[in-house]
Amino acid sequence: MTSQLEREILDQPAALARLLDAERPHLAALGARLRAMDLRYVTLAARGTSDNAGLYAKYLLASSLGLPVALATPSLYTLYGTPPRLRDTLVIGISQSGESIDIIAVMEEARRQGAPTLALVNDTASAMARVADHVIDLHAGPERAVAATKTYTTSLGALAALAVAMGGRNLREADLLAMPGHLSRALETAPAAAAVAASLKDVDDVIVAGRGFNLATAHEIAIKLKELTYTHAEPTSSADFLHGPIAILDRRYTVIAIAPTGVLLPNQREFIARAAGRQARVVAISDDAGVLAEATAALRLPAGVPEWLSPLTAVLPGQLIALRLTEARGLNVDAPRAISKVTKTL
Amino acid sequence: MTSQLEREILDQPAALARLLDAERPHLAALGARLRAMDLRYVTLAARGTSDNAGLYAKYLLASSLGLPVALATPSLYTLYGTPPRLRDTLVIGISQSGESIDIIAVMEEARRQGAPTLALVNDTASAMARVADHVIDLHAGPERAVAATKTYTTSLGALAALAVAMGGRNLREADLLAMPGHLSRALETAPAAAAVAASLKDVDDVIVAGRGFNLATAHEIAIKLKELTYTHAEPTSSADFLHGPIAILDRRYTVIAIAPTGVLLPNQREFIARAAGRQARVVAISDDAGVLAEATAALRLPAGVPEWLSPLTAVLPGQLIALRLTEARGLNVDAPRAISKVTKTL
Repeated sequence: MTSQLEREILDQPAALARLLDAERPHLAALGARLRAMDLRYVTLAARGTSDNAGLYAKYLLASSLGLPVALATPSLYTLYGTPPRLRDTLVIGISQSGESIDIIAVMEEARRQGAPTLALVNDTASAMARVADHVIDLHAGPERAVAATKTYTTSLGALAALAVAMGGRNLREADLLAMPGHLSRALETAPAAAAVAASLKDVDDVIVAGRGFNLATAHEIAIKLKELTYTHAEPTSSADFLHGPIAILDRRYTVIAIAPTGVLLPNQREFIARAAGRQARVVAISDDAGVLAEATAALRLPAGVPEWLSPLTAVLPGQLIALRLTEARGLNVDAPRAISKVTKTL
Repeated sequence: MTSQLEREILDQPAALARLLDAERPHLAALGARLRAMDLRYVTLAARGTSDNAGLYAKYLLASSLGLPVALATPSLYTLYGTPPRLRDTLVIGISQSGESIDIIAVMEEARRQGAPTLALVNDTASAMARVADHVIDLHAGPERAVAATKTYTTSLGALAALAVAMGGRNLREADLLAMPGHLSRALETAPAAAAVAASLKDVDDVIVAGRGFNLATAHEIAIKLKELTYTHAEPTSSADFLHGPIAILDRRYTVIAIAPTGVLLPNQREFIARAAGRQARVVAISDDAGVLAEATAALRLPAGVPEWLSPLTAVLPGQLIALRLTEARGLNVDAPRAISKVTKTL
């Protein structure tokens, strides 16, 4: 029987298309309103997988709109009771359920201080949607597997559509509209992902390395591997990794390197060479023939995706590896141990 | 023969005292100048261990001064060539050598845009010190071991002194001035740290968990364990860890929990109970008798340190564990494999 998780992974191209169809008209007006504000920076509040979407926003909004992004520290609002001043900031909350108590607390404080708030949620009847000035519905449809997949890619899609609507530099809307098709093609890595999963069956030490726009991808693939397969998979910026942590690598390690075509490709190639030099096995997720040829195992991304949209496709082979590795280890795909769908932390 | 690293770890109380003696007069004037500016937020640029000091700044400056902190993404400045707008922000760069090319690029761009810049460096003749409007000399003295220790604690001390000088809420200067003495007492955990190191000799899976002010401590202890002992030690926010990653824990894991007295203590206790419930071994770094009694192994911090200064003492047992574990594994303490003192990334 096909698992919920597999169905939701395969639904991602359609989910992204639903989001783009339904939200773009509304986003044009929102983008104009936000552009007219004299915003200094963006504050982003999220946890877990949604926080990884926040990492994408950090690169996207800064590079295309010149807006620095500060990731909020919810405990300052909930536990310490010392929220910072939120003048001239747009506060974006991301939560698939819209019920994360600590993220709602950040949104409520922003509202109290008069800062504009925007919620990205998959449930527009949720508490977070009610608190926010503006809402983007992710249109992912019901997500029943504990591990989030389509709410992640639709969160990225919503952020990309927002950046386009706000007039982001060098962001072609046509490229965004082509993404559902590219997602379908990225899912064609399924057989290669199954082979990688088989090779990881007895591996516990995994490093997932990305940088720039795809630092988010590294974090998201690592959390899927952790929560579904219980592998000790650690995400890292490939730049930070060279500042010390690279010392841990040896032949026990598999490094999953996210290296799509773009500005950072030469740096990622150098990173891969350094990792291979330390005898680690390298799995490359890339559309570049050179990178794919140098890796121990290759997951080929579709060509023609610009770097700012590459996190939407690059994460899919990672989700597929996590799915197949969970099955290969005989674990429960839809109900991992020790966690639940809505996590309540303060 | 005593290693450089051990000498530098033991020099930390004196280094902090040197910093406070030498820089406080100068900081009073700087604090007044910065207070007079209408700053909206702080941008922090750093890599590796210095970036961990930046995590401390994120909690300290927000909670005491109401200033949100955005961690800079250097690749936007160096590789993508799309730096964000830096209006009404104070840009703080932290680098022990003052020669990190990418951090200097952030400072140069800030200067070009007219944003005030502050460098925390251990070498006032460095390129970064020359670029910045204001400089705080860490006064750590020469740091020869590849693994940074005293430049980390003096960076925390410099940030704490800066927050005091800027009139931070509820920050008593007397508490800061008492810290060199507390550091000496925290170093008395050396025998207990050696025992923990012995117990870790054959352990490869370590999670280092902190939250709030001590998220920085978790990151810093994990990087020491990685670069010195080649242990797969992963830092985490204990809140984020409960959102999925906790699923990986089993009896192979040792969890090092940073849990000093303070607002977050009840949350850290709950986290420890959850980790123990998954059969992980728990090493607690705390001054709380209840926490220490519940842990598998206990490292007792000195009493009387307020939470905002606790990262200065809480990191020391972690440094000592890394030192003794490196020795126990017969590795080179002063020259870890695969890394060098000044790492150049763009």
